[in-house]
Amino acid sequence: MAIERFVLVTDFGDGIYIGQMRARIDSLLPGFQVIDLVNDLPAFRPDLAAYLLRPMMRDMPDASLYLCVVDPGVGSDRAGLLVHAYGSWLIGPDNGLLAPLVAAAESASVWRIGWHPATMSASFHGRDWFAPVAARLCRGEELHLALMDRGDLVGSEWPPERAEILYVDRFGNLISGFQALGRPADSVLHLGNRAIQHARTFCEVAAGEPFWYQNSLGLVEIAVNQGRADQKLGLAAGDPIGPWMC
Amino acid sequence: MAIERFVLVTDFGDGIYIGQMRARIDSLLPGFQVIDLVNDLPAFRPDLAAYLLRPMMRDMPDASLYLCVVDPGVGSDRAGLLVHAYGSWLIGPDNGLLAPLVAAAESASVWRIGWHPATMSASFHGRDWFAPVAARLCRGEELHLALMDRGDLVGSEWPPERAEILYVDRFGNLISGFQALGRPADSVLHLGNRAIQHARTFCEVAAGEPFWYQNSLGLVEIAVNQGRADQKLGLAAGDPIGPWMC
Amino acid sequence: MAIERFVLVTDFGDGIYIGQMRARIDSLLPGFQVIDLVNDLPAFRPDLAAYLLRPMMRDMPDASLYLCVVDPGVGSDRAGLLVHAYGSWLIGPDNGLLAPLVAAAESASVWRIGWHPATMSASFHGRDWFAPVAARLCRGEELHLALMDRGDLVGSEWPPERAEILYVDRFGNLISGFQALGRPADSVLHLGNRAIQHARTFCEVAAGEPFWYQNSLGLVEIAVNQGRADQKLGLAAGDPIGPWMC
Repeated sequence: MAIERFVLVTDFGDGIYIGQMRARIDSLLPGFQVIDLVNDLPAFRPDLAAYLLRPMMRDMPDASLYLCVVDPGVGSDRAGLLVHAYGSWLIGPDNGLLAPLVAAAESASVWRIGWHPATMSASFHGRDWFAPVAARLCRGEELHLALMDRGDLVGSEWPPERAEILYVDRFGNLISGFQALGRPADSVLHLGNRAIQHARTFCEVAAGEPFWYQNSLGLVEIAVNQGRADQKLGLAAGDPIGPWMC
Repeated sequence: MAIERFVLVTDFGDGIYIGQMRARIDSLLPGFQVIDLVNDLPAFRPDLAAYLLRPMMRDMPDASLYLCVVDPGVGSDRAGLLVHAYGSWLIGPDNGLLAPLVAAAESASVWRIGWHPATMSASFHGRDWFAPVAARLCRGEELHLALMDRGDLVGSEWPPERAEILYVDRFGNLISGFQALGRPADSVLHLGNRAIQHARTFCEVAAGEPFWYQNSLGLVEIAVNQGRADQKLGLAAGDPIGPWMC
Repeated sequence: MAIERFVLVTDFGDGIYIGQMRARIDSLLPGFQVIDLVNDLPAFRPDLAAYLLRPMMRDMPDASLYLCVVDPGVGSDRAGLLVHAYGSWLIGPDNGLLAPLVAAAESASVWRIGWHPATMSASFHGRDWFAPVAARLCRGEELHLALMDRGDLVGSEWPPERAEILYVDRFGNLISGFQALGRPADSVLHLGNRAIQHARTFCEVAAGEPFWYQNSLGLVEIAVNQGRADQKLGLAAGDPIGPWMC
């Protein structure tokens, strides 16, 4: 199946790096569709981003190629991966970023990328290695791929859920690594001394009250009606949460 | 007239939501032109964003469809609107966001959107409801529209100007809800004990001096030459300003 | 040679200005490819941005037109420039922003732009003047260009390197105005009492240690493994650095 769009998933922020990715792709595949899905993932935390990636893909169109770059080990000898799962392709470092979605997929193919460009910087493999790999894949060019066992991925032993805050959104809402689907509505999430109850949506809760709900990604999110949950609860990306009780 | 581009107007910031909007649109209308006009409107403040929207549309091309999402009431039973005005289309919540531009238009048609997707999240109607509505409108598909009286819009009674700061830009300039067009150059804007004089542009004012001028949207903007007006004056989005004197 | 893409290089941040540039371009050249290369250059500092521009162009495709807007003098009588160099076109204010890349080019043509639109705002020439100039250039329309001597550009006397921090990235890394290419690896950069040694990449340095390396733009960058160099060293954009010793 042909690839119809590239999708950028990075921790680059809105600065000079994401633009260079876009420009490099446009020079390799002029006019090709590129979508910025998320570029403000927590910096240097592939272990958190990994649990957002699969939920974010859930409602996305097939035939997408995800360029995933949260890569604190750039410049070391960590491998680069190509993954085919859920009707889409993903390219990224072998640092756990792609592991949970591979583990969750009914079927997934994983290859180590053997091809390297003649020259590349030591610090920007997204631009210099992964973007050219994506272009070569689209054009059917050689990538010296070596099929891997799923179990050999860094992070293959990670659990299916993560009892931490993955991401704080612009409104101060706290997206967790817990699945909401299938969780009973009377489940109570404990954060230190606080017991956080479920609500379906913001409007069901008094102003200033924290609650948890199933967010638009299908994850448990902690929010405060007309307030910022991050400030109210003193929590940030990477902080542990739980346990659950009934 | 055919719709040539979608224009995004949101308070989503640069995080995970705007990318999901783009991706959803691309899955519904592959390759369709989408322009990020503004995504950092003050969070949860449709009452402020409403007064920026019409000035921002002023110089825009016709045949645009604006997806407007500043929507603190998402998940409640607030309605969704389709508006045709100024040669363009707008889709957004019935919370005042579209009211001032509808009130100011010589002619405008407003419909309540009756169509809903089979499933949608409770917290992300921009992605799950308004984006599909936009795609259906482009394709001429049924939307179960109910024509509305302009006077029935939430916010239809709001005044034509707003004596508040609407938006603080990256440089600390304060964009107000006052029209500059037609305002005499000897008008003086009072902010507490300060009297802010007019200048045509930054270069006419001593460094560090606050002044007001007609900004590129046609609104009154308060600025400081070689300085940040927000810090100098201690003002933020939503703060009241005025009165005017001569 | 035909222009294949516009590339945006600004200090606008992610707010209301960059979207208006995109929208204006789309109204003038519907569907034309526009790439956001960088929009968070230090505000009001063409003297810093000037030294990032050439390195950022280095690996970019030819046939690009750069719309460069870091323009604190907007509204004054500073000129507007069109430059042809390195196989690409650039448009921007005559305030030094384009001077170092013109000085470094083997051959470059520079024109003063004589054409103005019938009306334009005093504060947003990027949208109202430079974007229309770019569109007119693409369509082969009259621009009333006056060829200039390179030596007449504002900033033509600036040195080829700049002993300052140009830009702080999202990770706290400090991009300097020093070229790294050709600099011996035993060069030591002095910052007050500190002596910063070279490393090839982050992985070669102990956690928390500052070092300098050749970044992906070919510039000297100061970084801290698993830390933020800006906080560790107390440095920001515009701060002086050096001298070098061996």
